[in-house]
Amino acid sequence: MKLLLLNPNLTQAVTDVVLQAAQAAARPGTELLAVTGGFGPQVIGSRAENALAAHGVLELVAQHAAACDAVVLAVSLDTGLWACRELLDIPVVGMTEAGLLTAALLAPRFGVLTYGRRLVPVYRELVESHGLLSRLAAVAAVDVTPQQTFSEPQRVLAEVRQAALQLVEQGAEAVLLAGAAMAAMAPRLQPDVPVPLLDGVVCAVGMAETLVHQAWPKPRSGSVAATGGREVHGVSPALQALFARRP
Amino acid sequence: MKLLLLNPNLTQAVTDVVLQAAQAAARPGTELLAVTGGFGPQVIGSRAENALAAHGVLELVAQHAAACDAVVLAVSLDTGLWACRELLDIPVVGMTEAGLLTAALLAPRFGVLTYGRRLVPVYRELVESHGLLSRLAAVAAVDVTPQQTFSEPQRVLAEVRQAALQLVEQGAEAVLLAGAAMAAMAPRLQPDVPVPLLDGVVCAVGMAETLVHQAWPKPRSGSVAATGGREVHGVSPALQALFARRP
Amino acid sequence: MKLLLLNPNLTQAVTDVVLQAAQAAARPGTELLAVTGGFGPQVIGSRAENALAAHGVLELVAQHAAACDAVVLAVSLDTGLWACRELLDIPVVGMTEAGLLTAALLAPRFGVLTYGRRLVPVYRELVESHGLLSRLAAVAAVDVTPQQTFSEPQRVLAEVRQAALQLVEQGAEAVLLAGAAMAAMAPRLQPDVPVPLLDGVVCAVGMAETLVHQAWPKPRSGSVAATGGREVHGVSPALQALFARRP
Amino acid sequence: MKLLLLNPNLTQAVTDVVLQAAQAAARPGTELLAVTGGFGPQVIGSRAENALAAHGVLELVAQHAAACDAVVLAVSLDTGLWACRELLDIPVVGMTEAGLLTAALLAPRFGVLTYGRRLVPVYRELVESHGLLSRLAAVAAVDVTPQQTFSEPQRVLAEVRQAALQLVEQGAEAVLLAGAAMAAMAPRLQPDVPVPLLDGVVCAVGMAETLVHQAWPKPRSGSVAATGGREVHGVSPALQALFARRP
Amino acid sequence: MKLLLLNPNLTQAVTDVVLQAAQAAARPGTELLAVTGGFGPQVIGSRAENALAAHGVLELVAQHAAACDAVVLAVSLDTGLWACRELLDIPVVGMTEAGLLTAALLAPRFGVLTYGRRLVPVYRELVESHGLLSRLAAVAAVDVTPQQTFSEPQRVLAEVRQAALQLVEQGAEAVLLAGAAMAAMAPRLQPDVPVPLLDGVVCAVGMAETLVHQAWPKPRSGSVAATGGREVHGVSPALQALFARRP
Amino acid sequence: MKLLLLNPNLTQAVTDVVLQAAQAAARPGTELLAVTGGFGPQVIGSRAENALAAHGVLELVAQHAAACDAVVLAVSLDTGLWACRELLDIPVVGMTEAGLLTAALLAPRFGVLTYGRRLVPVYRELVESHGLLSRLAAVAAVDVTPQQTFSEPQRVLAEVRQAALQLVEQGAEAVLLAGAAMAAMAPRLQPDVPVPLLDGVVCAVGMAETLVHQAWPKPRSGSVAATGGREVHGVSPALQALFARRP
Repeated sequence: MKLLLLNPNLTQAVTDVVLQAAQAAARPGTELLAVTGGFGPQVIGSRAENALAAHGVLELVAQHAAACDAVVLAVSLDTGLWACRELLDIPVVGMTEAGLLTAALLAPRFGVLTYGRRLVPVYRELVESHGLLSRLAAVAAVDVTPQQTFSEPQRVLAEVRQAALQLVEQGAEAVLLAGAAMAAMAPRLQPDVPVPLLDGVVCAVGMAETLVHQAWPKPRSGSVAATGGREVHGVSPALQALFARRP
Repeated sequence: MKLLLLNPNLTQAVTDVVLQAAQAAARPGTELLAVTGGFGPQVIGSRAENALAAHGVLELVAQHAAACDAVVLAVSLDTGLWACRELLDIPVVGMTEAGLLTAALLAPRFGVLTYGRRLVPVYRELVESHGLLSRLAAVAAVDVTPQQTFSEPQRVLAEVRQAALQLVEQGAEAVLLAGAAMAAMAPRLQPDVPVPLLDGVVCAVGMAETLVHQAWPKPRSGSVAATGGREVHGVSPALQALFARRP
Repeated sequence: MKLLLLNPNLTQAVTDVVLQAAQAAARPGTELLAVTGGFGPQVIGSRAENALAAHGVLELVAQHAAACDAVVLAVSLDTGLWACRELLDIPVVGMTEAGLLTAALLAPRFGVLTYGRRLVPVYRELVESHGLLSRLAAVAAVDVTPQQTFSEPQRVLAEVRQAALQLVEQGAEAVLLAGAAMAAMAPRLQPDVPVPLLDGVVCAVGMAETLVHQAWPKPRSGSVAATGGREVHGVSPALQALFARRP
Repeated sequence: MKLLLLNPNLTQAVTDVVLQAAQAAARPGTELLAVTGGFGPQVIGSRAENALAAHGVLELVAQHAAACDAVVLAVSLDTGLWACRELLDIPVVGMTEAGLLTAALLAPRFGVLTYGRRLVPVYRELVESHGLLSRLAAVAAVDVTPQQTFSEPQRVLAEVRQAALQLVEQGAEAVLLAGAAMAAMAPRLQPDVPVPLLDGVVCAVGMAETLVHQAWPKPRSGSVAATGGREVHGVSPALQALFARRP
Repeated sequence: MKLLLLNPNLTQAVTDVVLQAAQAAARPGTELLAVTGGFGPQVIGSRAENALAAHGVLELVAQHAAACDAVVLAVSLDTGLWACRELLDIPVVGMTEAGLLTAALLAPRFGVLTYGRRLVPVYRELVESHGLLSRLAAVAAVDVTPQQTFSEPQRVLAEVRQAALQLVEQGAEAVLLAGAAMAAMAPRLQPDVPVPLLDGVVCAVGMAETLVHQAWPKPRSGSVAATGGREVHGVSPALQALFARRP
Repeated sequence: MKLLLLNPNLTQAVTDVVLQAAQAAARPGTELLAVTGGFGPQVIGSRAENALAAHGVLELVAQHAAACDAVVLAVSLDTGLWACRELLDIPVVGMTEAGLLTAALLAPRFGVLTYGRRLVPVYRELVESHGLLSRLAAVAAVDVTPQQTFSEPQRVLAEVRQAALQLVEQGAEAVLLAGAAMAAMAPRLQPDVPVPLLDGVVCAVGMAETLVHQAWPKPRSGSVAATGGREVHGVSPALQALFARRP
C-alpha cells in the first residue's frame, strides 16, 4: 500500500525528518510518498499560519491523494483533518490525533509536549476537539524553537527531558512529543523518562496502515460524507476537480 | 467608526443581504465596508469548503482591515476567527459567536437553526469550541438550501417556523438563525415563535461597535498575541506583509 | 436611553465609583440612574450576604426599572440576574456576566481576579453557572479587603499586579477584575500586564446599550418568560405590583 | 435531636404536608419544628419568587435555628442552601439535594419530576449546581399546578404516573418527585412504576439525622466558613445578630 | 438492623479497625457483622488486585448478605459496588461513595487523601465514575504504606497533616481520608486542619442505616434490576445460587 | 507475532466466532491463540457477571500471556482492561475500546449498538470511562438475546438494521456493533446502513498488531506501572506468580 505523508509547510527538512521516522515505522510493503507544501507558512507557529496551511493541505491532497491508499497529515495541529476526511474516499489520519489515540491505549492519562508556550492553549483546544480532554494530564512547552533542536541539541535535549519529567509529576503516564524534530529525540530521552515517549508520525503510520487493511466504508451520510458537485474558484484545477466530482 | 464586513465566499448576493442587515443594525456614525471573497467556495456548505475559506478570510483582512476599526466575519461558521484575532490589532467578531453570546444574555439555554442536516454536527462543534455547549439546547436544520429561500419562500418560511418551534420544544429559550438568508426571515416569523429569533450579523455589528468604543488592548502574551516576523509564501503581497510586520 | 445602574449593597461609595466607571464608558445619549440598596449587606463578602442581596435587587428594580430602558447589575456576583430577567420586560445585564462574555471576544481563555480567598470558589461557581467553565483559566484573589484599596493603595496595587501576572502564568489571556474598586486600578496596571484587564461595569454598560438598540423581544415561553399574577406578601407595594402585573 | 423543617413560602398547607412526610420518616427521638415563611411568595413558581424566598429562608433560620440541631430546607429548589451552611454552625440539608444524593445510592442515573414546564430548566440548573449532571437522565414536568393535586387528584395521579414512566424510558433508574404535594402520591404510584419514587423530604430528614449523629465539624476555612462580624441593615434583629456574631 | 461490613482483602487487622470505626459510628440497635475476604489480595494496592477483589466481594455477599439488612463495602475503591446492587435486594453502600456524598453535604468542593501516589489517578477515576468530578478539588497521596501507620505513627501523622493542609490550599473545603488506617487518625489531626476530615466507613454506616430505615424499593427495570436465572460456574454454591435465583 | 484472544465467559461458541473474525482481520504472520474462560458466567449479561469475569480474565492472562506478544480482550465490556495493562509487560487492547478509537478515526460522532436494554447505561459508562463521551451520539440496544442471533437470524438482522438506522438519525456517523454475534452481521447489513458498521474484534486485532510492531515501553511510573511483589492467595499458582514477580 502507498501512504501519502503530507507536510503543508514549506520546510523540506521537516518533510525529510518526518519521512525518516515514517520509514522506520512502516511495515514491509508500505510505500511512502512524502510531499511538502507549495505555498503558505515556512513553519506553522501561530493560529494564522495554521489557518492558512489548511488550504495548502487541500491542494496537496488534490494533487497526490489519488495515487495513494491513505493520507497521514504530518502536521502536528492536524490541520484540515476533517476537511480531508470529507473530501477523500481513503483513510486520513492526523499525527497528533494518532498520538493521542495511541497514548489512550497505553496510559489512563497523558501529556503533550511541544515547542513554544504560545501554542500550549492551541494544543489543549486540539485535544478537546478530539474529545479527549478528560484523558489529558497537561500540555507543556519548551521555550526553544524547532530550529534550536539542530543548532543547540544538548540544550534542547535537556529542556525536553525536564519538561517531560514535569508532565509525569503532573500525572502524565505517557507523553506525546508533538513536533517532528522533537520526536527524533525520543530514543535518546526514553531511558531517562519513566513513561512512554510517543511520536505522532509513527503512531499515524501504524493507524493508517491498519485502516487501509480493514477497509471500512466511508460514511455515506452525515458531516463527512462526500458532498459532490461543489463549486470552488481560484484554486488549482486539481482541487477544483476534487470539489466538483460526484461520489 | 468603520467596520469591515467580510464574506469569504464568492456569492455577492450573500454579501448584499448581510450588508443590508448590518446597515439596519448599525448605529449612526458606523460606516460599513462589505467585501466578498476573491477565490474559494461559491457557498460554504461543507467542512472542506470551510477549511478553504479560511485562506480567503485572511486575504480579505490583509487587503481591507488596515482601513477599518473592527472586523465582522459574515460567515456563519466563524471561519478563521482566532487566526484573524492573532493577526490583527483591531477587534474581530464572528457572527455566530456574537449570536451565541447575545443569546446567552437573553436566555438560559438556546438553540441554533441552520440549512442542511450535514452541518448540524459542525455547528455543534462550533458551539463547543466557543465553550458554550452547556447552554445549547439543540441544533436543528431545515432540509432546504439557502437558494430555496428565494425560489420557494413560502415553503422555507414554513419549515423554518416549524423547526424553530421544535427547538423551543427541546428547551431552547432563544433561537439563533445561523444563515444570512434565514435571518432575513426573522421579522416575519417572530410573531409565531415565542422566543427571540436572533440574527448573528446584527449581534456581531453591535458587539464590534462596542469593542471599538471600549478600546481594550490586544493581548501581548499568549496564543493570540501578535507573532510578528512570520514568513509565508505564495500568497498575496498584502497577506505576506501582514504576516511579516512586527507589532 | 436610560440605564439603571443597580448596587444592592448599602455602600454609597461603591455606587459612586461604579457610576463614574459607567459614565466614562457610556455612549453619548446614554443616561445613567445609579441606585444603592435600601437594606441588606453593607458590602457583599459572603454567600449569605449575596443571598440576602437578591431581595434588595428585586426591590430596587421594582422601584426604578419602570423609568429605564435596561438594567445593569453593578454587583460582581450577578445577584438576582435571572430573576430580574424573568420579572422585567427590559434587558438586564450582570457586570461579571458581561465581563466574561467580553473576555470571550478577546481571548481563548481568561482569568478572574477578586478580593478575598473565600470568594474564589463562589466566582468559579458563577462562571460555571454561566456555562463558561471551559474558557476559565483560573480564579485568583488578593488577600486584602476592598476598603484597603483606598487606605493602602500602593500595597493593593502591587498585590493586584502580582495576582494578574500569576493568572497570565496559569494561562489567562485576559483578566476580569471582579470588584468595583479594583476596576479603577485597571488603567494604572494595564501597562504592566500583558493581557487586557477588563472592568465588568464598562462591559455591562456596552452590552446593555447594544441590547436596547437591538430590541430583541423577551421570551414568551420558557423559564424567563413573564409569569404574571404572582402573589407575594410582606414586600414593598412596588415589588408586590411587579409580581402581580400580567404581561 | 430537633430538626428545623423550613418552608419559606407562605402556604401553611405545604408546611403541613411536609411535616407529615417528615414525621413518618423521622426516627424515634427526632423532634420536628416546622415553620412557614413570614413574607415572600405564596408559592414558589418562578425564578424571581425563588430569589425572594432566599431572604425568607435566612429570616426563618435566624429566628428558629438556635434551638435546633439541624435544618431541613423544605423547598424543592434548595433555596439559600449554601448561605445557610455558611451562616449556621449546624448541618443544613436541602430536600432536592438529599433526594439526588439518595438517588445516587440507588441508581446509576435518575430523573427528576416536577410541576410546570417553566421550572424544568431551573431544576436542571440545580442538579448541575450540585455537580450531578452526569447522573441525570432527564427532568420532566406535569402540566398541572400543585393546587390541582388536591382539586383533581385522579387526573394529576395519572399524569405523574405517565411522566414517571416516560422518565424510565429516557433512562431514569430512580425518580425524584420534586414537589411536596407530589411526594404524597409516591406510595400510590410506586406499584405502577418499576423504579424507586423518592421524596426529598424523607431523604433530607434521614441525612440531617445522620449528620447530627456524626457531628462533623464545620469548615473553619473556605467559602462556607463562618464569616463573623458582618453588618447588615433593614432586616430583623435576629438576622442582624446572626450576621454579626463571631464564631 | 444488621449491617454486613465487608472487607474483601485478607488482612484481618483492616477488618478489625474498620469494625471499630463502624461500631463507634453505628446507632443503638444496629448490629454489625464484619467479614474478611477468603481469597484474593492481602491488601489492595493496585488496579489488578482491585479487579480480583471484585470476585471476593461477590463471594462474601453470597455467603453473608442473606442474614443482613444492608451491606457496607469497607474497601476504599468501592469494589464491586454496582454489581452488588444488582445482585442483592438490600441496600449496598460503598465507603468512598458515602464519604464523597457526605462531603457534598458539607462543602462545595472537597479533596481525597490516600496512601501511595500510584492510586491517585485511580481515585480520580472513582470520583468521576460517581459523577462528582466537578466537586473534586484534588486527590493527594502520602508516600507511605498503610503498614507504616502502625510502625511509624508520628511520621505518618505528620505527612497526612501536611497533605491535608495542601489539599485545603488547593481548594478542598472538606477532606475524605480514603484508607481505613488513615481514618483512625482523624480525631488527632482534626484540630490542626481547618476543614472536616471524613472517614468513609462512618459515612457509609450512617447512609446504610438510613436506607434500611427508608426502605425504598429496588429498581425493577434498568441496569441494576435483578437479572434472575443467570448461570455461572466454578464459584461457590452460594454465589451460584445467588446468580440463579429469580426475583 | 502471536496474539492472545481472550474470552472470559464459558461459551466456546463465542470464542469460535470471535476467532473467526480475528482470523479474517489478522495480517499475514499474526498467530492467534483463542482461549475461553474456565469459570464464571456462561455469558456476560449483567453488572455482576462482568465483575466476576474480571477474575477470569486475570486467570487467563496468567496462564496464557507469557507465550504471546499482545492480548486482545474479546469481551465487549473491556473487562479487566487496565488491570491487565498493569499486570503484563505486553500490549493489551479491549475490543470496545478499539472499536471506539477506530470510530474516532472515521467519524466525528458515533453510536454503539448492543443486545439488551439493561446494558445500555453500562456501555455509556464504559464510553465515559474511556473519556469519549463527547464523541458519543447514543447507545442503542436491540431487545433480543445474543442466542436469538442464531435461532431467529432474520428477525435479529431486521432489528439490528432498524436500530442502526435510528442511531444514524440520532447523529451517529459510525456505529460500533458491540457484541460478537452482532459483528458477524456487519457485512450483510452494511449495504443498508449509510455509515460504517464496526466490529470491535477486528479493530482490536489491528491495534494490537500495531502496538506490538511499534514496541513502546510500558510505563515505569504511574497507575499502570508494574507493581511487583504483590501477595495474593486462593488463586491459581500462575496468577499468584504473576502478581508476585518483580519487574
